[in-house]
Amino acid sequence: MKPYSQMTQEELNAELVQLKAQYKKYQALGLHLDMSRGKPCQEQLDLSMGMMDVLDSSSDLTCEDGTDCRNYGQLTGIQEARELLGDMMENNPKDIIIYGNSSLNVMFDTISRAWTHGVMGNIPWCKLDEVKFLCPVPGYDRHFAITEYFGIKMIPVPMTPTGPDMDMVEKLVREDESIKGIWCVPKYSNPQGISYSDATVRRFARLEPKAPDFRIFWDNAYGMHHLYDHQQDYLIEILAECKRAGNPDLVYKFSSTSKITFPGSGIAALATSPNNMEDFLSYLRKQTIGHDKVNQLRHVRFFHDIHGMVEHMRKHADIIRPKFELVESILQRDLEGLDVGTWTCPLGGYFIMFDSLPGCAKDIVARAKKAGVVMTNAGATWPYGMDPQDSNIRIAPTYPSLQDLQTAMEIFSLCVRISSIKKLLAAMN
Amino acid sequence: MKPYSQMTQEELNAELVQLKAQYKKYQALGLHLDMSRGKPCQEQLDLSMGMMDVLDSSSDLTCEDGTDCRNYGQLTGIQEARELLGDMMENNPKDIIIYGNSSLNVMFDTISRAWTHGVMGNIPWCKLDEVKFLCPVPGYDRHFAITEYFGIKMIPVPMTPTGPDMDMVEKLVREDESIKGIWCVPKYSNPQGISYSDATVRRFARLEPKAPDFRIFWDNAYGMHHLYDHQQDYLIEILAECKRAGNPDLVYKFSSTSKITFPGSGIAALATSPNNMEDFLSYLRKQTIGHDKVNQLRHVRFFHDIHGMVEHMRKHADIIRPKFELVESILQRDLEGLDVGTWTCPLGGYFIMFDSLPGCAKDIVARAKKAGVVMTNAGATWPYGMDPQDSNIRIAPTYPSLQDLQTAMEIFSLCVRISSIKKLLAAMN
Repeated sequence: MKPYSQMTQEELNAELVQLKAQYKKYQALGLHLDMSRGKPCQEQLDLSMGMMDVLDSSSDLTCEDGTDCRNYGQLTGIQEARELLGDMMENNPKDIIIYGNSSLNVMFDTISRAWTHGVMGNIPWCKLDEVKFLCPVPGYDRHFAITEYFGIKMIPVPMTPTGPDMDMVEKLVREDESIKGIWCVPKYSNPQGISYSDATVRRFARLEPKAPDFRIFWDNAYGMHHLYDHQQDYLIEILAECKRAGNPDLVYKFSSTSKITFPGSGIAALATSPNNMEDFLSYLRKQTIGHDKVNQLRHVRFFHDIHGMVEHMRKHADIIRPKFELVESILQRDLEGLDVGTWTCPLGGYFIMFDSLPGCAKDIVARAKKAGVVMTNAGATWPYGMDPQDSNIRIAPTYPSLQDLQTAMEIFSLCVRISSIKKLLAAMN
Repeated sequence: MKPYSQMTQEELNAELVQLKAQYKKYQALGLHLDMSRGKPCQEQLDLSMGMMDVLDSSSDLTCEDGTDCRNYGQLTGIQEARELLGDMMENNPKDIIIYGNSSLNVMFDTISRAWTHGVMGNIPWCKLDEVKFLCPVPGYDRHFAITEYFGIKMIPVPMTPTGPDMDMVEKLVREDESIKGIWCVPKYSNPQGISYSDATVRRFARLEPKAPDFRIFWDNAYGMHHLYDHQQDYLIEILAECKRAGNPDLVYKFSSTSKITFPGSGIAALATSPNNMEDFLSYLRKQTIGHDKVNQLRHVRFFHDIHGMVEHMRKHADIIRPKFELVESILQRDLEGLDVGTWTCPLGGYFIMFDSLPGCAKDIVARAKKAGVVMTNAGATWPYGMDPQDSNIRIAPTYPSLQDLQTAMEIFSLCVRISSIKKLLAAMN
């Protein structure tokens, strides 16, 4: 089939009639398929059921250093967990704090602390007239929701295939003292699934922000989440690179096991410089007596070491790789050559990004919903939910079964074609 | 023996020589005994080891409403846990949010949210010239540490045997709009171990604060922590009383299972009015996707229901009751009639409060430390660590073994007597 852009009005109308007939058939099925969030599917969760067996009533819940995990104490986490997550995050265990079940919570609290108490002795952000954050776009809606909640002005920075537009990032942070941070998902990014290039990471570590309290919020959520064994993205470790560049305090690095074991029942971690860590501990000491050490021990006993975790992630990949490939094959089969959109084919992470013709994304998502397929809201990948091109859609393939995913994607591709034709027809009139 | 206050200088000196000889003997033992914090002992922790068995790899981790506890979701907690903690807190499950492992963390975050965003639409506290909290004294040091961290001015309010001095509380909150809250441990209070009387709770529910964003921070940490079966304190349920009084939004009530199952690996909860809950959810929705539901389910499956929890708490009581009684018996044996101090004999909770002669508390705690017995810092029970009388000491009997506790308390009572004599002798010169 030739590109829609080269079709006549008659050809487009004929195609539309046929597509609408297909759409109606799907609509009649009364489906309820959810592709809105990056949730593991049941088979993935089953992989971690062994974690429920590693501790029982006969277990010794004592750490190697003698700490009884059942009692109060150990604000920075148990040593075994710091070592395991140190290997996972490629950081020195002493630079790591193990938190509760949510790295998003740590990020929120970090902004909140900067708001109320400031960063490393600088003025609390609540006392400033304006605070701004750079937001690589498209990006992660829950990041944007945090900065929006605090009234932080979000400045979109375009993503490129190698990461954020670093010329723009460098210029903005050098010139504007009110820019206090940037949200980054540096590996298998949300929603593109791309990883920052070596040059990008090097330039991040060498930023010269005007604000002394500017920090990079480095959310390495998908560091272990490869889809393929022999083709994987590698990311330069940012703490080490910042240290080499003479900017050790420039970055906060976040991670968790949420999509490794159980979302909501994993363990989260921060890695950062000793100066930053003291800053974190100054509030953490007031906020809590300590996080859940039994769950930390449970994770350590389940994985044993980083190799155990890597092998575990291969099993995740075996489950979700076919889903990513199915999405890509349906998009290719149905849309290739039609000039109606582009999409990414990531090597890891949780998302595929689709870009439609400008002005079609909201319509596509609405049409899909009417046929029983719930996508992430169009616009969610932009600050304030405002995608200026109305073209970006995040596809989350992991949760549905392969069969449901096939149906959902066929409906999605139908909706893309219908919306595109309507857009083209409208432009002709 | 007659009261020290009626002894002559010679008699006091003779007594001192004999006490110092005993003290030196203890010092020579090179002891390391810790009575500083309200920590459960190992036997108490062992009571909850069965909780490690209720979930295994063959378990169905699905809630009654179909929620898979292993995945994301359920921001307010699983229904079963809300019901169990509803029974524990005497509140309607729908008025409860289940949090992570620490109610202290919820209290901290509550102050932080008020600081950054204000309470129910009122001005954020960070924008006010002054924010004050009422602090019943003696009280809980970690409460005071939170308000101090935020620069909130703390106003001590004397505790009486029936709770805080309510004449003073009523007057202060009615007159001063900058007073935004009061810290309360209403049952088996920290450190007195007393419970607020019916009249006190009634008066709390009928406060007429000048500040619309004034809230009672009702930390019901020891609601289930009775020492005796047939002699227990009962507390009027504050949410219900506030509702009856026409002030449904006046109180935030906090609780947790930290000293029921494992400190650090329990579940915490908030109970409050629908208006307040919406206020909490407005930030919680940004802060996290949800708390640890697997651990919530683990608690529910372990206890089954409130009766299971009550029976469990009887076992705790059987372990710690002899410790409380031992402390009281040694204080009575060694100090009764000497006029050197008073102490409480609580029916529950985690602490016994000791009041020495004015100006002796720091000295007693320092002397005990030199003989290897670590007590809570003198002054810790007051805001800013400043006990104006230097007389208040918190005794935490639960953690040491009975044998260690006996030694520790004998050393403590020695230190009390030595300090008291020194004080009396100094006053004679």
